[in-house]
Order: sequence, then C-alpha cells, then structure tokens
Amino acid sequence: MDNMVNLTLAELSGLSNRVLTANGMAADHAQAIAEVIVAGQRDECQSHGIYRLIVCVNTLRNGKVVRDAKPELIDVSPALVRVDAKFGYSQLAFQMGSKVLVQKARQVGIAALAINHCFHFSALWPEVEYLAGEGLAALAMTPSHSWVAPAGGTKPLFGTNPIAFAWPRPGRFPYVFDFATSAIARGDIELHRRAGKTIPLDWAVDATGQPTDDPAAAMRGAMMTFGGHKGSALCAMVELLAGPLIGDLTSAGSTAYDQGVGATPCHGELILAFNPSMFSSGNSDDDLQRAEALFGGIVDQGARLPSQRRFDARLRSEANGVEVPRQLLADVLALIPG
Amino acid sequence: MDNMVNLTLAELSGLSNRVLTANGMAADHAQAIAEVIVAGQRDECQSHGIYRLIVCVNTLRNGKVVRDAKPELIDVSPALVRVDAKFGYSQLAFQMGSKVLVQKARQVGIAALAINHCFHFSALWPEVEYLAGEGLAALAMTPSHSWVAPAGGTKPLFGTNPIAFAWPRPGRFPYVFDFATSAIARGDIELHRRAGKTIPLDWAVDATGQPTDDPAAAMRGAMMTFGGHKGSALCAMVELLAGPLIGDLTSAGSTAYDQGVGATPCHGELILAFNPSMFSSGNSDDDLQRAEALFGGIVDQGARLPSQRRFDARLRSEANGVEVPRQLLADVLALIPG
Repeated sequence: MDNMVNLTLAELSGLSNRVLTANGMAADHAQAIAEVIVAGQRDECQSHGIYRLIVCVNTLRNGKVVRDAKPELIDVSPALVRVDAKFGYSQLAFQMGSKVLVQKARQVGIAALAINHCFHFSALWPEVEYLAGEGLAALAMTPSHSWVAPAGGTKPLFGTNPIAFAWPRPGRFPYVFDFATSAIARGDIELHRRAGKTIPLDWAVDATGQPTDDPAAAMRGAMMTFGGHKGSALCAMVELLAGPLIGDLTSAGSTAYDQGVGATPCHGELILAFNPSMFSSGNSDDDLQRAEALFGGIVDQGARLPSQRRFDARLRSEANGVEVPRQLLADVLALIPG
Repeated sequence: MDNMVNLTLAELSGLSNRVLTANGMAADHAQAIAEVIVAGQRDECQSHGIYRLIVCVNTLRNGKVVRDAKPELIDVSPALVRVDAKFGYSQLAFQMGSKVLVQKARQVGIAALAINHCFHFSALWPEVEYLAGEGLAALAMTPSHSWVAPAGGTKPLFGTNPIAFAWPRPGRFPYVFDFATSAIARGDIELHRRAGKTIPLDWAVDATGQPTDDPAAAMRGAMMTFGGHKGSALCAMVELLAGPLIGDLTSAGSTAYDQGVGATPCHGELILAFNPSMFSSGNSDDDLQRAEALFGGIVDQGARLPSQRRFDARLRSEANGVEVPRQLLADVLALIPG
C-alpha cells in the first residue's frame, strides 16, 4: 500500500475546518486557521501543514485557548495599532489588524501592529507575504516557549523566536524569509522524534547540558540558537520587541502561563510594515529595480533566494494537490470525535 | 621600549580633531567624528577607534567626501524623518535627525530615520545607545561595499551590513548588540593583515572561490556571512531596508560609486525607534521588569550579555585612559601634514 495519500487543496481545507469545528472551534477561527494550514501543506512546510492540526486540537482540548474569542482592535496612533486577541488563536487578530496596518503604513511610511494575548502556532510567512502583496516590506517576530539556551549557556530561556521578512516584487513571488532564531524549528525536532531519526549534535543539549543526537532528550534539554552569539543576540531582541515592548510575555513567561499542559505558546507578536514609495526620495521604480538587481546578483552566481523551494512546491501543489503521509492523515482523522 | 602608549580620552579627542581638521574637515564634522572615534577606542573596539582616522583621512584625500556638507532634514510624516547628508560623513546627519526621531517615537510609538547620501564608517552602537538613553528601543542598519558572498555563492555582492539594537535599562548600561552580518567585520580582516596573522577558514573565500586563511587574499575574494543561509537572508534584508527602501544604494551600488578609489562606503542608513510606554498596554514598569528578568536569566546561567566586554572596557578607559599601539599612533600622527 502506498504510504502517501494525495489530497486537493480544497479537500485539505475541508478536512482542516472539519477537524477544528468538531473540536469546538468557532467557525470564523476555524476558517482562518485552515487557511494557514492549507498554505503550509501546499508549500510543503511539513511542520506547519496538516501536522499542526494535532498541535491545535491538543491545545483546544487542554482548555487554554478561547475557542470563540472576539479580537479587539485598539487604534493607538497614526503609526501604531494593537489587537487584543483575547486569548484566542492569532489568525483572526492578524486579519483584523493587518488591514489597519496597511492603511497606516501607506499614510505615514512605517507602522507597527502589536497582537497581544494570542495563541500562536503558524509560520509567519503567510503574514509578511500578505503585506508584500499590498506593496509593503514587512518584518514579523514572536517569542514562543522557553526551549532555547542563550549562547554561552545550556539552560532553556529563549523561545525559537522566528523572524520573517518580505519585500514586494510586483508580478513575482516576493523575496521572503522566515526562520527560527534557534538552530532549527521545534517542529522539526518533533518530526525527527516521530520518524525515529537522530538529530545533528549542534541543534541541542540534553538536560545535563551535553550535546545530544536524541530528539526526545533535546526536547527535555535546551535547543541552541543559530549563528552563535549573533543569533543569540537576535533571539533576545525578538523576546524584547515582541514581548516587553508590546506589553506581553517573554517565552519564559509563556511557559509559566502554560503550567505544564503543553499548549501552543500564548504571547504577543510584532509586525512592522514599510511603505517604499513614502520612504524613497521619489524614484520608487528605480528603487525597486535596484532591489531586483540585488536578487539577480544572488541567482546569477548560483545561490538561491530564500523560499524558492517553497514557491516551487506551491506551483506543484496548486496543479497536482498535496501528498500527505497515510499515518499522519490517520492521526489527524482520529481527532474527529466519533 | 613599551609598544603601547597611554592617552587620556581628552588627548584622544584633541588628536582626532587635529588630524581631521588638518586634512580639511570642517570643524563641526571633525568634532562629531572625533566623538565616535573616542567612544570606539574607549570601549576597546580596535577596528572602530583611532585606526579609523587612517580610513577617514584616506577617504578625505581621495576627494569623495564633501568635507563641509550641510545636512538637510526632511520631515516626511508623523513617523518618518529623512536627512540628506549631502555626501558628507554621517555623524552630523545623525545628530540632526535623531532629535526629531526621538520626538516622533515619543508621539506615535514607532518612528524611522532614513539618512541618505552619507559616508559611513562608524559603528552603529553609539547611535542606538543614544536612543536607549532617551528611553527608546532602537534598531539600526546600513549596507557597505560589496565584499560578501550570499550563502551558496562565492562572489562578492552584499556588504558587511551591520545590525545594531539597543534596549533601555534605566540606571544601567543598555542591552546593546552591534554586529556585522558577515562572518566578521571587514576591519578585523584588515587588522589581521596589518598584524601578519592568518584568519579562520570560514571567514572568506579567495578570488577563485576557495576558502582562504590569508587576509589579503580574503580581501580580494569574498567574505562569508555569519550563520549560513539565515545570516545571508538577514544580510540581504539590510541591503533592501537600508538601500532601495530608503531610495539609496545597495552595497554593489556603493562599490560602483567608489570607482575603485577605496573610499568609505557611500550609502544610506535606516534607524528605527520604539517607545515602550506607548507600545505596551499601560504597565510599562512591569514590562521593563520582564525584560530585566530575561537579562537575569542570561547572566544567571553563566552566559554574557552582548557588549559587556565593551562596557567593562569603558569603565577602565574612563578611569585610566586608553592604551594605543605605538606604531598605530605613529601612523596616525603621520596623517598631519608637515
């Protein structure tokens, strides 16, 4: 029997909505979450695709998340909007706040969206790609749970703290990156554990502070940051800007709030949007051409643009649907109460 | 004979001013530049201290920089200010623009300062530290010359593209980092060359694309970014945000503008300022305490805060003056025309 199952994107969307609403999620939240799960599976980001339904339902069942939260928007200033997600998932809060963020960035050149009190489990690239689609450059970041040791240490303190960035390229996929400031995403270690694979020794230390190739020992110990002390410094910056700056929790605070139930992190998110046509001194087309020359200089020497693999997968999935491991699909279907 | 010479900070300031004005620099520019050179030497950042006078005078002599440029401030929006440095050094432009940046960040929560058409050779930490001293978080970045290959490539395209960040800590030195997104600062390779030392093999490739431990070969080849594809992506982000976004040159554009004379890069700089008391939902003191708990979590496990070595040096230098290599001092004194 083939180990993989082919699903259309519509089937994937229906399945995701079904699993979420069957577990008590309000329909508007379920739809918003299904969209990012479909996008993740479509782009073959395995740790942000259908697998996340398991994480999501687990968080629903342990009672931490408000299943029908109504996000509240606070228009703080001409450059700043805040959305209180009221302890629901982040997607609806982003949908509400991002429209105002776009308006503000168009009007004053730079603007920030702070989302507070949200449960966040999705990749950040869908959000910065949305903003790039509106002609803006965008930078987004969140803390997570305290799983990562600072450079020079061995004890968990920081989150995996992703940073995502997008630059608009009219008529083309945007320039986009989205990476954990940890050596690897937490979900990738979990996928190794599920697959019975070892992990590289520079990803994590065990609970005694020694490097380990055992994903289960890594998850009980501390992950490392990428890029040594520089990556560690950036990881701390994400803690500060998407935590105390916006009046929300650090990763350690999120872990404490979790009280050991293993829910998705509950914290804040910071998203910045930049309007090139207001920042530049008037020759916006020339500026975009200068950016295109930069991308050409990368590709022409045989290097890749970030997200290129994801965009290739997107084109394949939109034509042919997605391939999902049969066991993973069975695990997801088992989430629907009988 | 002792190879080191002790100078007071006042002597260092006088010497820097003398060298610069003797080479035709306007007095206001010379004073602003002397301040950052003294700060660099005081903090024992060897590549941003008195050594930079050699770089600075070389740039003056090759005629690229406008020695008495009058920066022009353009108040773009409630969140955005631009300063056209008119092809002078960046320090006066920063002094002019940063005061307006602080006002805007206080009023609307987040604000940006774009400096255009400046020659930039100083570290970024004096700038973000100034903003932290005003109670703001700050993020600054610039491109440089195209010396660095993207991950997966071997040809120079990016600059060393520093990113600096500061977080205010009332009554203490701020949390500050300032690092090149290249594996190492260009100045550190040059200092190795001057000292006749080899460099680690992961800093650079030679002109044929092979890893090299020869600093001179590295400077003719291409430097690497830090942190693999993640560092490379950040390096590209700096190109975009401090280049095309603000209507200014990429590092490749700056190299082309230089026409091979070897001057300091001519380009733009982007500085963002964040006002914690407007971003947070009102409990700003709690938020600052949450940040302090994060710093405690770093230090308590034996890891260091970035810039700690620099702050230790600062306290030493303020008490005892600075130690400068006798040969370097002779090279600097030789810059004063007879």
